Amino acid sequence: MYSGKARAYTNIALIKYWGKENQELIIPMNNSLSLTLDAFYTETNVTFSEDTSEDLFYLDNQLQDSKATLKVSRFLDLVRAKAGSSLHAVVKSQNFVPTAAGLASSASGLAALAGAASAALNLQLSSEELSRLARRGSGSACRSIYGGFAEWQKGDSDETSYAVNIPSDSFEDELSMIFVVVNDAQKDISSRDGMQRTVETSAFYDGWLQTVPQDLAKARKAITDKDFTALGEVTEASALKMHGTTLAATPPFTYWSAESMKAMNLIRQIRTSGLPCYFTMDAGPNVKILVERKNEEALLNALKDQFDPQQLVVAHAGPAIEVLSEEEA
Amino acid sequence: MYSGKARAYTNIALIKYWGKENQELIIPMNNSLSLTLDAFYTETNVTFSEDTSEDLFYLDNQLQDSKATLKVSRFLDLVRAKAGSSLHAVVKSQNFVPTAAGLASSASGLAALAGAASAALNLQLSSEELSRLARRGSGSACRSIYGGFAEWQKGDSDETSYAVNIPSDSFEDELSMIFVVVNDAQKDISSRDGMQRTVETSAFYDGWLQTVPQDLAKARKAITDKDFTALGEVTEASALKMHGTTLAATPPFTYWSAESMKAMNLIRQIRTSGLPCYFTMDAGPNVKILVERKNEEALLNALKDQFDPQQLVVAHAGPAIEVLSEEEA
Repeated sequence: MYSGKARAYTNIALIKYWGKENQELIIPMNNSLSLTLDAFYTETNVTFSEDTSEDLFYLDNQLQDSKATLKVSRFLDLVRAKAGSSLHAVVKSQNFVPTAAGLASSASGLAALAGAASAALNLQLSSEELSRLARRGSGSACRSIYGGFAEWQKGDSDETSYAVNIPSDSFEDELSMIFVVVNDAQKDISSRDGMQRTVETSAFYDGWLQTVPQDLAKARKAITDKDFTALGEVTEASALKMHGTTLAATPPFTYWSAESMKAMNLIRQIRTSGLPCYFTMDAGPNVKILVERKNEEALLNALKDQFDPQQLVVAHAGPAIEVLSEEEA
Repeated sequence: MYSGKARAYTNIALIKYWGKENQELIIPMNNSLSLTLDAFYTETNVTFSEDTSEDLFYLDNQLQDSKATLKVSRFLDLVRAKAGSSLHAVVKSQNFVPTAAGLASSASGLAALAGAASAALNLQLSSEELSRLARRGSGSACRSIYGGFAEWQKGDSDETSYAVNIPSDSFEDELSMIFVVVNDAQKDISSRDGMQRTVETSAFYDGWLQTVPQDLAKARKAITDKDFTALGEVTEASALKMHGTTLAATPPFTYWSAESMKAMNLIRQIRTSGLPCYFTMDAGPNVKILVERKNEEALLNALKDQFDPQQLVVAHAGPAIEVLSEEEA
């Protein structure tokens, strides 16, 4: 029996990942930059043994169907190949997500799976190697190997595409991210399908790619300078551009709902009134607000005029993945 | 005394005008294509005489301030120059707009002013010449010279930039446009400033310009073929692209409010449920829906589930400008 476990935290991209250069290997079209958060994480145990003749996957104590299990199995195949093992595994995952949020994160899930499975088979991966492995499960998972800020360097091959930590002198501890969980979700397009359609059909995709390097440079400099305004501005600009690309796709689509728009316009209004805060959005209708921790309470109060407190979830910077190897005879 | 009067109807662009190549002459960056509507129009009387020593401008029976009057005067200067006249004028305009809408249209206003002033001084302009003149007052006004469908051919000079009618075999009579007048308008950016910022700073503007010719070709073909679905699809795509360009401007901005988003997503939903309808939006939060006249009633009923009937204004295709010359001794 070979067991390993890991706890990985989700991350939110401040400079967005949007589009794949290689879909099978999950090599992205552009670098992205993220903040790992404490409020959402996944704990996963993986045990390889001869006691099971197939991979079994439990999520939140529920045995999963063959479709979800197949995705896990394919990922475990990568780990087995590295270890030269043919053992099947029992995978047990728990998602820790504030109830109100109802958000599952493939970033924390696949990072935890990569950490637990590689530890179980004693692969002794470096952070970069673990990031590369997690990337194969879900692109954004490669950033959840690190605490604080991380940058996914796109590279151009399986070997060269992984995330690295961005030195920040603990700037992330001065920040909060408030999730506005909206209730009017549309039937949506997965991020995978959405980015693919955008890459293939959007007249704005070239414009997106052209501006990412300067946005990344601004974000890195803002982190070095501990310049909240600069980081907030480029975060919001990157999100708006990412969502703008979908409007020129064929057919066009959007992840925005009326409640998303209400939140975004309210944040602009709060900012104009003197409280610095900036939003970002991913491939769904929820809005995430970057604010200085010292202004977190004031922002929550301002948001409570327009949103139910149950819709608001506070997160702070989270730690790196924690991996524990438990090799047993 | 030289008097003229005109009634001009507003128009809504199906393929959008967004960006100027020449700001003084109002030469656009791309052709645009519009539908003239019956529900919103302006009636204007212009009387040049020696009885007034300055231009006076009454809008809806109110004498306007010097700023609004200066804009009218500058436009009248163009007409005076063409006629070799130095007489001042009294201008009286009435905007006819459904009360609920609260919409003023510079397109109908400047087209009516161009028609009335040129008639007063007996310039005997052709439609193309009148379109060129109206363009100098407000770009989109050049399309309000025509009923039904019009295309503003951008040209590259004052002489070559004007709108022409698009032959349609009365296809426009099969159409309705329903305005959803939203109540949560943001403090907004004028279309003039918005398009200028977009031209100068948006990473998506090149993508916009590249796709306009194919969108125009689709729209023209749809009109020829009387193909409502094709016309609706390209109309909605053009509006989304125009609004997408603003999200990549520096700083980014949007004309969308939560109510706009609610309307757009509702229209997508109604369409999915089997009632063909498509939206467009201009430099403001109101949403305009293109629907076949035979489905107008059904669409209104579907909209009334989510919007106050007072917010809904129905328009049909409108006629060309009507100009009456009244030369008196």
